[in-house]
Amino acid sequence: MDYRFSEKVSHIKASAIREILKFTSQPGVISLAAGNPAPEAFPVDEITRISKEIFEEDPILALQYSISEGYTPLRDLLKKELEKKGEFVPDRDELIIVSGAQQANAMMAKVLCDPGDILCCEAPSFIGSLNAFKSYNVDLRGITLKEDGIDLDELEEVLKTGKVKLIYLICNFQNPTGLTTSLEKRKGAYELAKKYGAIILEDNPYGDLRFTGENVPSIKSMDKDGIVAYSRTFSKILAPGIRVGYISAPKEIINKMVICKQVDDVHTNIWAQVLAYKFMTQCDMNAHLEKLRAIYRHKCQLMIEQIEKNFSSKISFTRPEGGLFVWCTLPDDCDMSAFCTRAVKEFKVAVVPGNAFMISESDHTTSFRLNFSTPTDEQLVAGCEMLGKLSKEMFGE
Amino acid sequence: MDYRFSEKVSHIKASAIREILKFTSQPGVISLAAGNPAPEAFPVDEITRISKEIFEEDPILALQYSISEGYTPLRDLLKKELEKKGEFVPDRDELIIVSGAQQANAMMAKVLCDPGDILCCEAPSFIGSLNAFKSYNVDLRGITLKEDGIDLDELEEVLKTGKVKLIYLICNFQNPTGLTTSLEKRKGAYELAKKYGAIILEDNPYGDLRFTGENVPSIKSMDKDGIVAYSRTFSKILAPGIRVGYISAPKEIINKMVICKQVDDVHTNIWAQVLAYKFMTQCDMNAHLEKLRAIYRHKCQLMIEQIEKNFSSKISFTRPEGGLFVWCTLPDDCDMSAFCTRAVKEFKVAVVPGNAFMISESDHTTSFRLNFSTPTDEQLVAGCEMLGKLSKEMFGE
Repeated sequence: MDYRFSEKVSHIKASAIREILKFTSQPGVISLAAGNPAPEAFPVDEITRISKEIFEEDPILALQYSISEGYTPLRDLLKKELEKKGEFVPDRDELIIVSGAQQANAMMAKVLCDPGDILCCEAPSFIGSLNAFKSYNVDLRGITLKEDGIDLDELEEVLKTGKVKLIYLICNFQNPTGLTTSLEKRKGAYELAKKYGAIILEDNPYGDLRFTGENVPSIKSMDKDGIVAYSRTFSKILAPGIRVGYISAPKEIINKMVICKQVDDVHTNIWAQVLAYKFMTQCDMNAHLEKLRAIYRHKCQLMIEQIEKNFSSKISFTRPEGGLFVWCTLPDDCDMSAFCTRAVKEFKVAVVPGNAFMISESDHTTSFRLNFSTPTDEQLVAGCEMLGKLSKEMFGE
Repeated sequence: MDYRFSEKVSHIKASAIREILKFTSQPGVISLAAGNPAPEAFPVDEITRISKEIFEEDPILALQYSISEGYTPLRDLLKKELEKKGEFVPDRDELIIVSGAQQANAMMAKVLCDPGDILCCEAPSFIGSLNAFKSYNVDLRGITLKEDGIDLDELEEVLKTGKVKLIYLICNFQNPTGLTTSLEKRKGAYELAKKYGAIILEDNPYGDLRFTGENVPSIKSMDKDGIVAYSRTFSKILAPGIRVGYISAPKEIINKMVICKQVDDVHTNIWAQVLAYKFMTQCDMNAHLEKLRAIYRHKCQLMIEQIEKNFSSKISFTRPEGGLFVWCTLPDDCDMSAFCTRAVKEFKVAVVPGNAFMISESDHTTSFRLNFSTPTDEQLVAGCEMLGKLSKEMFGE
């Protein structure tokens, strides 16, 4: 049988990260390629207790069909939380609970983009979102990401085509670079979106994981024109396996997303939504987040120290103020691809080659991504030592 | 702000059922309009115990990221179950776990259909699936559903266009009609799909809920040509709130669905997958299903009795051998819409007008759907008495 697939999916491929992760399951391989929260970051005891409580108190609530908008007490609580943080104050109909931020971002493309519409994103950017956008046949345009955020001139050039529907930005501790967009760049992107009639999709999965430096206001908090959607997730602050995220946007957009959610998967697992609600109301969220920040602060510092100690001086790297990733870059004349391949095959350390995060994997880059959240301290040190050895062998001291 | 939505979603609307369900939350309204499992059908004690066990045994498994294909032990178990039932024997890469059968069906359209491709379905059919297909801009064609399944001549006429990608069928106790497709019609549909190069999507949410009559082999069990996909769900046999379903299809299609799943929502809530696995392995599934069948057999019989006793003889109705629904039809000169509206507004009984299940809500029908799974026996009797009173007032004895 010769299957004829839709144009939408015929050109998308399995994530390159997944291919590399296959190597990580081989015995003896240290993975600095993942993006999972540290296992010690999960509040196991609290979740165990709360899950039990859910079934003791109201098992039918956790088992019966629920509404597509999401568990109402959780929606109302998230509104209060956003208000308390000084972010912004969405009405109830300006927020929908979804199955992780991945679904929120994919749905934004489904709801807003026709094939050929332009979607601008940072280059590099999060591969999961890029593939989600590609699965709706959008015309993806990468805007160069600098130390303080995307190049606004480059963005405006693309906006001038009049075909840009969405601008996708991860402003805090971006995946894969760990970079944070400055307040000026956030304001600039907002003004440009407004000027050219585009919607900004601000993805903030790591916002609560700032372990150093000062908070920068979200673009959504500046939104007076109804042009910003803002997605977050419980994956990095509670647990990714429960698949709970949310997105806040103008109610016209949320209305469409509710219909979309209804036809795509009816509603998000309701046990997980009640769990998130009870965790937020019964536990000390600030103390929990401080614990997570301490874990990642430590792991990030350890990685930076090890890079400084071991890596060839040819390799430059970012110094993230939060999140899970460090981005390393080789000079233009170095063979990054050979480095990553030798790293995993000969030195048994997996990293993600930077082209996995480019609009097209054939786009030139000499960068690679390191993750510090998943490995143990011992693995992190050993992994960086091996990468250091290889880097010096290939590129000199 | 004048939001420009994608063509895909600009024409889909919130389900008509949802609008009617709004009335059901008014005090005193009896709902025969839902499609929820009976609350007493949930194995609450077993689920409570198993959930506790999951967190005692391996909490990280239930909280960490998992793979897009689904929990491997559950995939392997479902293969064995299908084999044991004499259905068919999928390889592991011919089955993916998804967030309910709704997601499986929506994804089939995403993976296979370009805008304008024809998708044939029973008329009437399940509104959730129809809206999911519409959200990918397919050209939906309803094929008249008769007592023993769709009109095959009508199907062939559409297939002759050469533009049919998918044929969507609910062969067992169909939603909304409760009708079961005969073996002959199943074979006939398969042969036609093969002849014209179309894929059949066989949705079987109610298959385990046969409470009378003999099992009819699935179309998938006849598939020698790799042209049938088969979706099922735990919603009706375990709990819909956990959102776990699966689909088996040729591995080329499953491969595409895995990528689709990865970009749409990464993976299905892993706690729920482990729960389904443990329930199937630790509990007596046969005894559990017999209990469910007894509940629905009783409720269906009660509804049929009440219809016979109370309704105007002008109303004909189906006698389902399983599932959750009875389909009632008025003569062509009767005003079904007025009947449904008066039923909920004056007589405080909610039913779903049949046009909610047509390809277009403006398509003519004089039918309406009754649900017997959700109401209590008392509500069911009282509801049918009120509908009977109204029907005799409007249409005579």
